[in-house]
Parts: sequence; structure tokens; C-alpha cells
Amino acid sequence: MADRFWAVSPLDFRYYGADKRLFERLHQYVSEEAYIKYQLKVEATLALTLADWHVCTKEQADEIVKACEQVTASEVYEEEHREHHVVRALVNCIQRKVNHSAQPYVHLFATSNDITDTANALRLKDLTINVILPDLVELEQLLISLVRRYADVPQIGRTHGKHAEPITFGFALATYVSRLLGRVQSIFNSANNLRGKFSGSVGAYNALSLLEPSDPTLFEKQLLGKLGLKPSDGSISTQIVEPEYVADLAYSAISCFSVLANLADDIRHLHRTEIAEVHQIYEVHDVGSSTMPHKINPRNFEHVKSMWKAMMPRMITVFMDQISEHQRDLTNSASGRFLIELFVAFDYSVSRLISAFNEISVDEARMRRNLETSKDQIIAEPLYILLAMNGVSEAYYRARDLFAESDTTKIPLTELIWKKPDIRSILDRLNSAQLEVLRDPAKYVGASKQRALTVVAQAEETIETILFPYTRGQTNDASLARFRSERRPSYQNMEAAEQELMAAGHSGLHE
Amino acid sequence: MADRFWAVSPLDFRYYGADKRLFERLHQYVSEEAYIKYQLKVEATLALTLADWHVCTKEQADEIVKACEQVTASEVYEEEHREHHVVRALVNCIQRKVNHSAQPYVHLFATSNDITDTANALRLKDLTINVILPDLVELEQLLISLVRRYADVPQIGRTHGKHAEPITFGFALATYVSRLLGRVQSIFNSANNLRGKFSGSVGAYNALSLLEPSDPTLFEKQLLGKLGLKPSDGSISTQIVEPEYVADLAYSAISCFSVLANLADDIRHLHRTEIAEVHQIYEVHDVGSSTMPHKINPRNFEHVKSMWKAMMPRMITVFMDQISEHQRDLTNSASGRFLIELFVAFDYSVSRLISAFNEISVDEARMRRNLETSKDQIIAEPLYILLAMNGVSEAYYRARDLFAESDTTKIPLTELIWKKPDIRSILDRLNSAQLEVLRDPAKYVGASKQRALTVVAQAEETIETILFPYTRGQTNDASLARFRSERRPSYQNMEAAEQELMAAGHSGLHE
Amino acid sequence: MADRFWAVSPLDFRYYGADKRLFERLHQYVSEEAYIKYQLKVEATLALTLADWHVCTKEQADEIVKACEQVTASEVYEEEHREHHVVRALVNCIQRKVNHSAQPYVHLFATSNDITDTANALRLKDLTINVILPDLVELEQLLISLVRRYADVPQIGRTHGKHAEPITFGFALATYVSRLLGRVQSIFNSANNLRGKFSGSVGAYNALSLLEPSDPTLFEKQLLGKLGLKPSDGSISTQIVEPEYVADLAYSAISCFSVLANLADDIRHLHRTEIAEVHQIYEVHDVGSSTMPHKINPRNFEHVKSMWKAMMPRMITVFMDQISEHQRDLTNSASGRFLIELFVAFDYSVSRLISAFNEISVDEARMRRNLETSKDQIIAEPLYILLAMNGVSEAYYRARDLFAESDTTKIPLTELIWKKPDIRSILDRLNSAQLEVLRDPAKYVGASKQRALTVVAQAEETIETILFPYTRGQTNDASLARFRSERRPSYQNMEAAEQELMAAGHSGLHE
Amino acid sequence: MADRFWAVSPLDFRYYGADKRLFERLHQYVSEEAYIKYQLKVEATLALTLADWHVCTKEQADEIVKACEQVTASEVYEEEHREHHVVRALVNCIQRKVNHSAQPYVHLFATSNDITDTANALRLKDLTINVILPDLVELEQLLISLVRRYADVPQIGRTHGKHAEPITFGFALATYVSRLLGRVQSIFNSANNLRGKFSGSVGAYNALSLLEPSDPTLFEKQLLGKLGLKPSDGSISTQIVEPEYVADLAYSAISCFSVLANLADDIRHLHRTEIAEVHQIYEVHDVGSSTMPHKINPRNFEHVKSMWKAMMPRMITVFMDQISEHQRDLTNSASGRFLIELFVAFDYSVSRLISAFNEISVDEARMRRNLETSKDQIIAEPLYILLAMNGVSEAYYRARDLFAESDTTKIPLTELIWKKPDIRSILDRLNSAQLEVLRDPAKYVGASKQRALTVVAQAEETIETILFPYTRGQTNDASLARFRSERRPSYQNMEAAEQELMAAGHSGLHE
Repeated sequence: MADRFWAVSPLDFRYYGADKRLFERLHQYVSEEAYIKYQLKVEATLALTLADWHVCTKEQADEIVKACEQVTASEVYEEEHREHHVVRALVNCIQRKVNHSAQPYVHLFATSNDITDTANALRLKDLTINVILPDLVELEQLLISLVRRYADVPQIGRTHGKHAEPITFGFALATYVSRLLGRVQSIFNSANNLRGKFSGSVGAYNALSLLEPSDPTLFEKQLLGKLGLKPSDGSISTQIVEPEYVADLAYSAISCFSVLANLADDIRHLHRTEIAEVHQIYEVHDVGSSTMPHKINPRNFEHVKSMWKAMMPRMITVFMDQISEHQRDLTNSASGRFLIELFVAFDYSVSRLISAFNEISVDEARMRRNLETSKDQIIAEPLYILLAMNGVSEAYYRARDLFAESDTTKIPLTELIWKKPDIRSILDRLNSAQLEVLRDPAKYVGASKQRALTVVAQAEETIETILFPYTRGQTNDASLARFRSERRPSYQNMEAAEQELMAAGHSGLHE
Repeated sequence: MADRFWAVSPLDFRYYGADKRLFERLHQYVSEEAYIKYQLKVEATLALTLADWHVCTKEQADEIVKACEQVTASEVYEEEHREHHVVRALVNCIQRKVNHSAQPYVHLFATSNDITDTANALRLKDLTINVILPDLVELEQLLISLVRRYADVPQIGRTHGKHAEPITFGFALATYVSRLLGRVQSIFNSANNLRGKFSGSVGAYNALSLLEPSDPTLFEKQLLGKLGLKPSDGSISTQIVEPEYVADLAYSAISCFSVLANLADDIRHLHRTEIAEVHQIYEVHDVGSSTMPHKINPRNFEHVKSMWKAMMPRMITVFMDQISEHQRDLTNSASGRFLIELFVAFDYSVSRLISAFNEISVDEARMRRNLETSKDQIIAEPLYILLAMNGVSEAYYRARDLFAESDTTKIPLTELIWKKPDIRSILDRLNSAQLEVLRDPAKYVGASKQRALTVVAQAEETIETILFPYTRGQTNDASLARFRSERRPSYQNMEAAEQELMAAGHSGLHE
Repeated sequence: MADRFWAVSPLDFRYYGADKRLFERLHQYVSEEAYIKYQLKVEATLALTLADWHVCTKEQADEIVKACEQVTASEVYEEEHREHHVVRALVNCIQRKVNHSAQPYVHLFATSNDITDTANALRLKDLTINVILPDLVELEQLLISLVRRYADVPQIGRTHGKHAEPITFGFALATYVSRLLGRVQSIFNSANNLRGKFSGSVGAYNALSLLEPSDPTLFEKQLLGKLGLKPSDGSISTQIVEPEYVADLAYSAISCFSVLANLADDIRHLHRTEIAEVHQIYEVHDVGSSTMPHKINPRNFEHVKSMWKAMMPRMITVFMDQISEHQRDLTNSASGRFLIELFVAFDYSVSRLISAFNEISVDEARMRRNLETSKDQIIAEPLYILLAMNGVSEAYYRARDLFAESDTTKIPLTELIWKKPDIRSILDRLNSAQLEVLRDPAKYVGASKQRALTVVAQAEETIETILFPYTRGQTNDASLARFRSERRPSYQNMEAAEQELMAAGHSGLHE
Repeated sequence: MADRFWAVSPLDFRYYGADKRLFERLHQYVSEEAYIKYQLKVEATLALTLADWHVCTKEQADEIVKACEQVTASEVYEEEHREHHVVRALVNCIQRKVNHSAQPYVHLFATSNDITDTANALRLKDLTINVILPDLVELEQLLISLVRRYADVPQIGRTHGKHAEPITFGFALATYVSRLLGRVQSIFNSANNLRGKFSGSVGAYNALSLLEPSDPTLFEKQLLGKLGLKPSDGSISTQIVEPEYVADLAYSAISCFSVLANLADDIRHLHRTEIAEVHQIYEVHDVGSSTMPHKINPRNFEHVKSMWKAMMPRMITVFMDQISEHQRDLTNSASGRFLIELFVAFDYSVSRLISAFNEISVDEARMRRNLETSKDQIIAEPLYILLAMNGVSEAYYRARDLFAESDTTKIPLTELIWKKPDIRSILDRLNSAQLEVLRDPAKYVGASKQRALTVVAQAEETIETILFPYTRGQTNDASLARFRSERRPSYQNMEAAEQELMAAGHSGLHE
């Protein structure tokens, strides 16, 4: 299969495989080539550990290490074609590249899954720490800057799709900053909690006990330690690592994906023609529809929701793969191979969402206009609360009836309440902030700004103190810097871009 | 992405992409290149229909048709990079290859999904009729030949994993022939029921009504008819074809996949060391385990179950994609692109199962031995039935107590019953067939052979009369013949292969 | 558990269990009591068949039939408490109620699943034909009447949540009439295709062959025939009926549920404050929010979507339950018991949707106003089409540029096009219908009305010719009539109700 | 619905509703009555907090508290029938029971979900801490005692269903002790991390800011603190609590359920007639099959797997319910109500598994016999390892060939190796432990015992130090003691029970 367009996976031909930047960042962890390289890394580390334990010489180990650096995926697959066993094929490829005397020490004491499970834990950890978390942090930071920018901008809160009470747009975004932060922590913890194993074909260290009967887990701990991994908490396993460690990471990623999907849904609904509080920055060459030249659609946000629909059900596979008969059956093998796709699609969606937020324009005036169409309804709530706070026993129903009367008589509720002596007598007792709310419902945003700013400050602190020591060191800063500079139009330039568009006569209204 | 091992999808680098024969048969329907070719076919057919309706000239249409034959996937993707709209990109690529005068007629009256939904229905139909159904029929025929071969071979029936009453191995397989046949019919019907559309951006034939206000569905019917498709039953749609037609096909395939998974489970359990009624033919170069040189595992059957675990949950995506807001939202776009993978994995598993059945050996002697370990338990049922048929009121509990007595006294139940005068008086009334069953429980197979042979005869007839007229014509018989001849060891040669193995000293017992 | 509020299932304490009308219609099929009654019906029918075959006397059979009419669920469960086997308990309860001489013939030749699988097929069939299909037909008829009423009422078609091209509201609903009709047919076919079995503990008619060795399926056919059922197509099974028959019904129901969820989503979005094309009829005593007295929410439509989210994933269980080891394992037993809930929740949602549609008001004026805000965008499509039809080679981009110019200059596109000589020269060639569309975009509804009316006529015919012969006979017409008369406000009275509300000063705008 | 058998949920009529002990322990958390009581508790706590803040008097608050103690579920549902809003109904019921002067303070500042989400978090936390965790700990302790008992008993390890290398039965169970412990910790953490909210209809503390503009979260913290809860980490929410807190608990429970299902699968396969290493203790009155009097099936283990199949897919609903439009839509309402069922089914399965393990008998002799059938195959691995450790370059293939030769010549591998001079020269270098393994493969259990005992010691310590301080205090110890004493046959008496059975002539072999 020499052509990208011969592929059947949309990831391979369209998303991951067609996005040069993403491909370059991801392939070293997610491609089959990468997976085999990680397996070779484990085999090499095994050789070094054997030398530490004086099972083989340092020279023999070095020879194996060097061989491991040379074996290619293509070689392994050709050998597998003959041997019908992919790890045995890998071992043969290594052995062929070393002297007779070093050959017995290749793969010694290992069962296939000692190599593959450990390699998989390692690549998932590297992928998460080096790529996914930095991308999530970038999205989080972008959202944080949006929260700050819009912390004060009133927007009508919507429940059941209907106008409820006011918030600020910054507050609305801050609810996602908070949820996302929780998921970032969860992903971070799960990735750091991935485990390897080196306990042999049924997990009882049978082979290794021939070397070290008193405590064969020492060998495993040393080997895994060189790779930055640990065995399971009890140093116990079957042929395979306890599946819960990977399941936890999958769950963390999917539940984070759901948060992104929710955010994407919200923003795409704000693009609706009738709402129009957010719209995509119009570009001259863009085509929104193949037959309707006028349409600019929130396709990036739609995309994120769609990718979530494709990936979320894979949790079912993860749960089914928790079950493996006795010391292991192979029915988790092919299915387990597909799991890496989840992380690719997830990271692609994170990146896509970053781009998407860099291409939107927020129409504050429209937000205000939308809010004001419901002025009278909005104050029904503070009216009821203030009546009740002042001891009106049927406050809720009184407010409802006043609202109905206002609706019938077309006298605005803000006015009507002053015409009712009993209500008026209560109004006279209110403080100025309370009265202000009854006069201008856009003031009834509660603690929107306060919460928004508090949440983003907390988020920044958490990111700084918890994540950065880990992500900064291991990430290729250069690539991250390039990553940021490449984005077009970068969020920093968004205001400029908008001004340009405005100057060119585009208002926030046309989609 | 120029290298197969840079792919992230196991289908692309390992299953579909690495199996030359399968790749050659499938790629023309399932690759992105194929999908774009199908879209071009729809665009070309549109041009011809426009000429029929005298919207453009026959020459202009021919020019478009010719252009459609030349456009490549890579060209389209490059153009999309500029235009950010994949169908508009396709249209531009076509237009560039025709004269100025023909350009307006490319894609005329069409919205993107008129092209893509129709192309998708067409490729799914071709894929199913030309590849998947022939493969399923081949599997069915292989099972039928096994049913015939083992129709008479007694095997203990197992419920709850425990010995129940005897059947024959042919009967056990015949239950799968029957279930599979039902699913083949369901897949066949769903594939033939796929629909296209040509009703424009909101499904109301808005554009086409400018041409033919009285009944624009005539144009659609003619266009789709040229492609062997129909519109939905009511000639109605939104921007997209009613999603239920594709959902039905997905369901048919997945529910068929479950039948294969069940079959695979059964056969792999028969490989268990303690059961050992089926084993994989031992090949000198095979490696069963990277550390246990002696193990030959039922990996093909395990694989089919595993692939089912990876694919079955995708039904959730299909259900979610039935929902599209108003005249359509785009959240079914990326998710819908992944659906083709289901069919690739499914066909791969069908092929793998065919290979797997070609590589097993059935140990009839072991089947008999296993059955006989439960002789005494088995006859408890016919004993109870015969007592009850002869009016013993507490027959069930009487049989249970006799079984318990036999178990305690170690007198075989077959003997014990003759020592009890009241039982004996009933035994004396039984006919010879009934008595035979009480003497040799292996005779208590009921209608196993009869049902097995009836079912396979019916299956063959159904395949012949219903499926063959469709599948034979359109299948490339040459490739199918090659397909069959290539298999190694072919089922026809299985007996020979076994004899060879036996001659080489391999019994049915070593795994 | 003597109190409804001690239940844990929302169906039991809140939906099915709290809705007197629904409970009365459903409980005779879906409750555990009903399930046991159906099992007793199968046991009784078995006795009658035994008499036909002269295994027992007519008197003995009648005695068993009478006993079956007396056994209660509570009795069976008490007996199960002792016996730890629910079907054996059922058998014991029957036996206790008959004379010594009739006892041996209770349950004779049967294995538990002969009774339970057959009873389950029967109750699912009755439930579907007698309750679910009539309810679906009622919903369909309600939608049909709405389609007729609004066939001519223009509404903006929406794709990606944005204004696309116009349709009529009747057309929008007709797309659901069509999809729903397809699903009704699918449910009808699956329900009629449910199968029973009477082939014993491993499916090979082992016991029955003691009676009729030449063809034991005759007994099964006769028994099932009395119940209006058939065995599987090949008269073959394991201990259990081929699971695909029930899986097909579950799929039909769930895929129909998705159509309802899509419809519910659409209508609830039309309730959005900013769209407000549909709103819930305001009732004085209704409470929309516990703190916001002014809110009337589309809770019925939200409910249907929510119930779909609870039930749709159960398809995964159905697929997993297709797999049963060898002649059967019991891991489908508890899980299979939950399936009935799907149908209860589904029917409840159908009923809820009927009520919901009876409580909405459609604001035609608002529909028109919404459409007109996008006048200029809308005509971009017909403009492009008409230019292209008349040979303008870059018609699509020309239309896009004109739209952009109109947007910049604020000259309406309807006017701007007359100011461009090259465009004008084409406009002069158009016929009056084509010109009309460019003048009043609300005319650009294509074949909306035509398709809407055709589809509903077809739907009515299908319902009449296919479904009614079945549903009418078996449905309790009186209950259906009562059902219709009870609804408040009935759809027939909707116009009146609306007028009343209007008279009372409620406009379509306040939510 | 006055009769349990009118229910449609198997939980209500069969599992939870029919198991007196379970019902008594669970209903106070999981029934609808309980849910309403929890809501009343939140309303009462609100009143007390209002008094703290001097919004109302202590007397008014006490009056409300007292009223909350009197309201019943049935009352609320009747009121809802009129009001069509369940929380407003609850509020009305409370208000009716207090004086005019206290009425305004009922539900003041609250939106419905302030009450319901908080109540739900509280009941889920109580349920988990008071019932589910103690039950899981009991299961864990039971498994620990089994591990200790069988730590030394050799069993063949099985991979791919085939004999691999030996372990001990205690080791096999210890792998579950370890996995279960991880899940118990995860459930414990998630339950302790559940959150409430009191931030009003759009989450911005709009109403509460009328009282305390500077920091309305103080009121929320105080209110929730009285209930032992906290708000979300950032004190931010929409109308509803961030859904991830409940999703985490659901995931923890389901992933734990998968571990139970895996354990159940393993044990039921060990019941297979051909394996027979574990069997259910035979009881005289038990019925295994309604037609096969001799069968005793592993139905409890089958049940646990089956319940997992019914419940596991509900994660899909949880993920879908993470998505709620803007400040909330109601499509998570009905679906969210079903979530409690998951925990009921889960706890039921934990209890069922405890019973199941109390009813099994382990056949050590059979374990040994099974292992010995594969003696020769087993030593292929240590042979290969020892050859390689001693520098034999093609050790793996040499071992494979020796195994093949042994298989052909029927000379046991244990003998054959001594006949090959090159092998012998290596054997002469081995230490006694290594040689022992080559003589008696049952010795090749590696670190089975060591790991098993270490893991259970760790588990006990974790349970003691982490869980007990929480679970012991809050659990009703009396009920737990009774719970343990009621079990029949209790595990402590298992040996006695087995001896009795043996004395009665039952061997471990008959099922």
C-alpha cells in the first residue's frame, strides 16, 4: 500500500495522515513503525538488564542494543509472514544481526507480552505527556484568554434552549475551563500510572525464577525502572498487564472528549442564524457549500462532535478487553491494536478545536440584543427571590402572575411592579444593587465575572505547578513554539483580523 | 504518508493493507481513492442526464464524463487544501479539465450530498454484492461441506459448559449454517435496498424545480436509474439520504459478525487442552508462543472474536448518526467516514475464518471419548422422558434419585435401572429404538443428522436460487477461482494433509 | 416490595408504573406476571398437543390447561425459592394442581427454553402488534395531519444550524412521516418473524425423537402453530431459539427510536427563544422551572431524546447476547430479561410524543419572519443555478461574488442583480416562475408541498393496506377510541385551544 | 402498581425487589422514596443555612425541617400530577406543612438541580460507602482467604485456552485480588469526590448574589458542608453539577464490574465437565435443568457475567449525558434517572459472587491430574530458558525440535533430554532447583506462592488502613454480622460441607 489514498482509515488518508504537522508530532508514537521501535527499545533494555545481572556480558548486551536500533518494521513484518508470530519475528530479526554468542540472550526470560505490553504503556505515556497534554494545555490556555476577554460581556443563559437568566460569555467558557482542567488532571494521572510487566508467559515469573528464585520481581523492577515504568502495584499479572491501567487512560481521554464535544455543540449552536452570537471569520476563498455560495458553516465545531461520535463507543471495546480468560486469551489482541486510534482522533480534535477557536469572531452587540429580547421574563426570578426574602409567602406564584399580567397587558414587568402597592412597599426596602437588577436585567449576572476569573486563575496555577514540570522538560519546545507560530490566524492576532474584516465591510451578522 | 508502517490503523498496516489478495479485491470499493472515483462516476452520470434533458449538449456531457475519468484523489485533496470543501474541490478539478462551455454543467443542480451519499450507496452495494456476499457464501459452503462430513459423528452437547445431551458435530455446525444463511439474506436485502438522492441542499428539489417544476423527481429517478439505484420510497430526503438504509446494512453486517464471533468462540473452546476435539494442523515452521515452543493456539478463531469486539460497538455511532438536526448538520460527516472500516474488518474476518477452517483437524475419537465420560449422566434425561411417557407421575424426581443412587453406589445407571422392578416393568414396554438409547447414550442424538442435512440442503438451495443470479454475474469469477486455489492447505486437501501429519507421527492431541 | 416508590426502575415508579392508561395497556405483555402467564399458555398448549398425539388423554390435557390458568406468579416465585430453578418451579406448581395420572405429562419433552423462548416470542409479538404498532400508527397519523395542515407554510430549511434554502414546515414533517413509515414496516416485519422452539435441551429433538423418530419437527410445528408461531426457518436451534429473530426486532425498535429522537431534537430546537417557530401551549397551572416562573420548556421533546439515550445503548447487550457458547450458556439469561424494558420505554416515548404534538402551537408568522431575515442569502443558490443553466461558466463564483458585493454595499441581492448588464441579459431569458423565485425567496420551496402530500398519501395507503388488517382485528378498538378521546387537548381541538389562548392575550412569542 | 409482579424491571421483581436482605440494605439509598427523602434532606439543610445567614428565623427553619421529615414520595407525585414539575411539587408539599410566615423560605435561592443534583451526589456517596464498598471488601476478604488456602496448590496456567506453564490456584485468584483492590480504591475515591451545588438556575449564583454579592459561594460551601459535600473544584457549574464527578463513579463501578465478569468467566470455565477443577456443591433439592435431572450448572457465575452484559453498555448513556447544551438542556433527565440501576445491579452481583464462592468446591486432585497431562509440553519452556542461559544460541528452536522428537518417538521429554550429549552437558551444570523443574513440571510454578501471599498481605493492609476508618464507622455492623451468618453454606463451613458430601459418596467429578 504505497499510496495514502489506498488507505481505508479516515485517520490515515484524511486526518492524521494528511496533516503534515500533526503527522510529524504523532507518528513517532502512534504508527506501527513507532510501536515496533518501542518494542525494540524494551528488548534492548532487557539485554542491558541481563548484563547487569551477569547473565550475559556487557559486550553481548551492547551488540543486542545496536541490533535493536537497526531492525525495521518492514523487516519484522516480512519475517512474520514466514513465522506467523510477530514477536518471534522481531526476535529473529534481532538475532540475525548479532553474533552467535549473543543470540541466546535476545528476548531471554521474556514472553511476547512482556515486550508488547511494556512497549505499549511506554508509547502511550510518551504520547500523552509529550503531545496530548501540551495540546490540551494549549487549548486550555486559549480558553483562559477568551474567558478573560469576555468575563464581563453579558449573555443570556440558556436552559432547555430557552432564555433563562443572564451570565457572561466569559463565565460560559469558564465552565469548560474548569471541566477541562479536571480531565487534564485525570489524563495526566492515568498516563503516569501506566504499567509494564516482565513476569513471563503466565505472570508467575516462572522463567525468571530459574535465575532468581528468592525474588524475581527485582529483575522486573530494574528493567522497567530503566524505562521509567513500574509493574502493577502488587507486582502481579497474568500473561498481560492488568488491563485497568490502560482502561483508565482510555476513560480519561473519552470523558475529556465528551467535554470537548459539549463545548463544540454549544459554540456551533451560537452560530445558528437566529442566534448569531459567534461566527466564523469569513475568508474570501472559503466555500461553505457546494451549491449555496453564501454559507459559512461551523464545520470545525461540527467536526469535533462528529469525531466524538466515532470514538466514544470504543469504550465498549475497552470494557470487553478487560476480560481475558484464565492467564490470557488472545481475543484482546486485534481489538487492542485499534485503541491507539482513539488517541490520534482525540489529539486531532483538540488541535482542530484550537484552530476553530482561532477562527471565530464573537458578536458582543448581538449577545446584548438577544439578552434584551427577554428582559421582562428575566426579572421574574429576582423579583420572586426578593419578594420571598422579604417574607412574601406565595412569592413564586405572585411573580408568575405578575409576569402573566405583564404579558397580557403589555406593560413591561419592570414598570408593572411599581404599580402594585404591596410589591412597591417591598421594593422600597431593597438596597441599590437589588433595585438595579430589577431595572436592568443585564445586571442580573450574579457572580459570573467573579467565578470566571477565579476559575481561570486556579487553572493557570494548576497547569503551572502540576503539569509544566513534566510537560516542559520532555516536550520538544522548538516544535511547540513552531506549532504556535504556525497557526493562522493566531488568536493573538484575532482582534486585528476582525478589524480588517470590519474595515472590509463584513459585519458579525452575515453567515 | 508514503510508508504502510506510518499508518495508525491496524486495517491499513496489518490486515487489509498487508494482505495482497484482500487488498486487491477490496481497495476498489473501500479506499479513499475508490470513494472519489465513485463520486466522479456520479458526476459523470449527472452530466449524461443533463444531456438527456437537453440542459447541455451530448458533446459537453461527454467532455465532462471524460474529465471525470481523469481526476485523481490526490488532485482533489490538493484542491481541497485551497478551497476547504472537498466536493467543491472535486468539482473544480473536473471543471479545469473541460472547455469553458461545458463548465457550467458540472455539478449543476447538485448539492454535495447528492454526489457523496449516492456514491457511498453505490460503493457499499458493489462491495457487498461483489466481495462480501461471495466471501460469505464461500464460508457457508465450506461449513456445509463440514456439516455433511460430520453429520453422523456424535459429540456431547454442552450447555453451561457442561455435558448435556448428545448431538453430532455436523448438527452443531448446522446451527451456524442456518443462522449465517439468515444473515446472508439480511445483508443481501439491505445492500440491494441502498438508496441515492438528487434532491438538492434541503431535499426539496429546489434547484431542480427551476428546470422541471411539475415533477423534479423524474430527473432524480433517471439519474439514479443509470447507476442502478433508486431514491427513498417516498422520493423524499433532507440534504442527506434517509440514514436508515445504511443503518440497516450496518446492522445486518454486525449481527452477522456476532454469529461469526459465536462460531469462533465455540471452535476455540473445542481447542482447549482438556477438550481437544478440534486442533490446528501443526506446521513445522509455526510458532505458537515466543517463549513456549510447544504451543499451537487457535489464534485465527481468537482473531475473529477480537475483531468483532473492535467493530461491534460502532453500531452506537450508526444510531447517533441517524440524528441530524433539521435539514442536516455536519456532525455525521467524519463519523460516517469511519463506517467503511466496519465492512473491511468484517470481510477480513470472513476470509480469516475460511482460512481457519481450512487449517483445523477434527478428532472424532476424542469426541467419542469425551461423550462417553458422561454416559451415565446422559441417560438420566431419556430415562425421565420414557418413565413419564409411560405415566410415572414423579418421573423427573425418580430419574434424579436413580442418578444419585448410581453416583453413590457406582453401579452404572444403565445397569441400575434393570435392578428396580417398577422401572423394569416399564422398560419391558419400550420399543427397540427406545431401549437402544438407554443402552448406548451416543445413540441419543435425536434428529441431529436429519436436521443437519435438511438445513444444509435448504441453505444450498437458497444460495443457488436467490444469491447466485446476482453474485455470479457480477463477481470476477477468475479472481474467485484463484482465491480458492491459493488457499493453503485447501479444504479439499485437508484429509490428505491430515494423513501426512499422521504418517509423520502427529496425533490429534498435541497442541 | 409493596410500594411503587420502593422500586428502583424509573419505568416502574415513574413512567410505565405511574401512567394508569399505559400501565393498563402494557402490563399484560410486559410485567413478570404476564411473562409467567405466557409461559403457562405454552405449557397448556403443550398438553393439548400431547393429547393430539395420544401421549396423554384429552381429559388429562384439559386438567393441565385448567391448572395453567390458576397458577400465579407469586406461587411460582415461592416455589423457585425452594427449587432454585424458575421453570422447574412453574412445572411443580402446575403438577400440584392436577391429579396423579396427569402429572407426568406436564412439561413432557420440554426443556426450560422451549417454554420461555416461545413465551417470550409470543408476548413480544402480541405487544408489538397490539400496542406498539397502533401507537406508532397513531403518531404517524398525527404527523400526517400536521403535514397536510402545514404543507404550504414556508419555513427556512436549515443545514449546519444555518439558514439554507426554503422548504415548507409540512415538508420538514413529511421527511419524518417517510422515515417513520419505513421503521413501522420494519418493526411489523420483525414482530411477525419472531419464532418459538420445541426441540429440547440441546436443540436436536432428542426427547421428542423417542416419540416420533421419523420427523420430530412435526410435533413442534403443530404446537407452535396453535400459538400462531413457527420454528426457525430450518427447524433448527440449540437449547435456545436463534437469537437473530429477537435481535432484528430490537434493532427495528431502536432505529425507530432514533428517528423519534431526531424529530424530538428538531422540534425542541424550534422552541429556542431565538427561533420560536413552535411553542408549547401555555397552561395556567404549569410550572416550567422551580425558580424561574416564566419558563415553559419543551420538556416532552427533551424527554424523548433522553429516553433514547437511556435505551439505545442496549443494542450492545443484544449483540453480546447473540453469542452463547456451544449449545448454550446462561450468560444471556439475566441480560435477556432486561430487553422488555426497551419496548416499554419505546412505547412510552411514542405516547409521550403524541401528547407532545398535541400540546404545541406553530407560529407561522414567526416562520415567515425568520425566513425573510435571510432573503438575500437564499437567492444566491437559484441565482447560481439559473446562471449556470444559461451557460455562465463560473456561475458559482459569480454568485458568491455578487452576494459578497451585496453584503458590502448593502444593496439587496434581489436588486443588485438587475444592475449588472451581463446578469440582466440572462434574467431576461428566464420564465416567470424562475423570475418569481429571484424576487420572493419564499417561493423557492421547490417541490416541498408536492413531496409532502405525496409522501403522506403513500403512508396512509401503506398503513391501510398493510398494517390495518393485522392491527385492527387484534386491537381493542374501544380502548383505542378512549385513548384518543382522553388526550387533552386533543389535536382536533388544537385550533380552538389556540384561539382561546390568543383571545386570552397569549401570543406565540412568550415562552 | 401494588404488586411486585406487575413491575417490568427485573431488578424490581426479581433481583433487588425479591431479595429481602439486599432490599433492606439498598432501598434507603436507591428507591424513589429514598431519592425524595434525600431531596427533602437538602431542602431542610437549606432552611438551616438560611437561618444561619439570618434570612429566616431559627424557628422558621425548624418548622421547615420538621415538614421535610413528614413529606412522602406519594404526596409529591400526586402534587406533580397537578403541577407537572416534580421539584416544584416537592416544594409545595413542604410549604403546605408550614406556617404562612415560613413558606417564603422553603427552596429560597434554589433551582431544582441545586436540590436534585446535591441529593443524588449524597445518596450515591452514602450508597457506595455504606453498602457497595463493604460488600466489595467482603468479597475481597473472601478471595483473600481462598488465596491463602490455595497458595500452594499447583494448577496449569492456561493461555489461549491451552495449557501453558504451571501456576498455583491461589496465584490465579490473587491476580483478581490485586485488580479488585485497584478498583475498590478507584470507587472509593470517586465516591468521596462527588459534588453538590447551590448556584442557581444558570450556575452563576444569580439569586444568591442578591443576598451576598461579594462571595455567594460561601453560602453554598456552608450548606454543602453540613451535608458532607463540596462544590466543584472551582465552585463553578451550569444549572447542573459538572457531570464528570458522577461519570467517574460510574466508570469505576463498570470497570470493577468487568473484573468481576472476568473472574466469573474463569471460574465457570473451571466448572466445564472436561476441566472440573471447581464444582458447585451438590444439594439434594437443587434442580439444574428442567429436563436433565443430573446437571448442576455454574449459574451464579453465569449470572454475574450476564448482569455485566446488561449494565456495561450504560457507560454510553453516561458519556452522552456529559453533553448538555449551554447552561443545560433536559435531555439528561430521564436518562440520568436510570443510572442508579447500575449500582443496584452491581451490588447485587457482588453479593451473588460472594454466595457463589461460598457454594463451590475446589478439586485439587483434578487440578493436579489436569496439569500432569501436559507434563512434557510444560518443560519445553524451562528447557529453552536453561539452554539459553547457558549460551545455546538457537535454544528456542532446539527446545521446539526436542519437543517434536519426543512427540514423535513417545519418549517423554523429561527422559529424552538426558539422551542428548550436548544437552546433557548443560544439564550437568544446573543447580538442584533448576534440575527439579525439569524433573517435575509441577515445581515450575515460579513465584506463584510468593506473589499470591504478598499481594493478599498488601490488600489486607490497604483495606485496613484506607477503607476501614470510613466503612467501619458508617456501616451497620450488626447487619453485616447477620449478613455473614446468614450465608449458607458459609465459607468457614465449606470444608465440613465438602467432607459431608464426600462421606455421602459425592466425588468432585459429577456435575
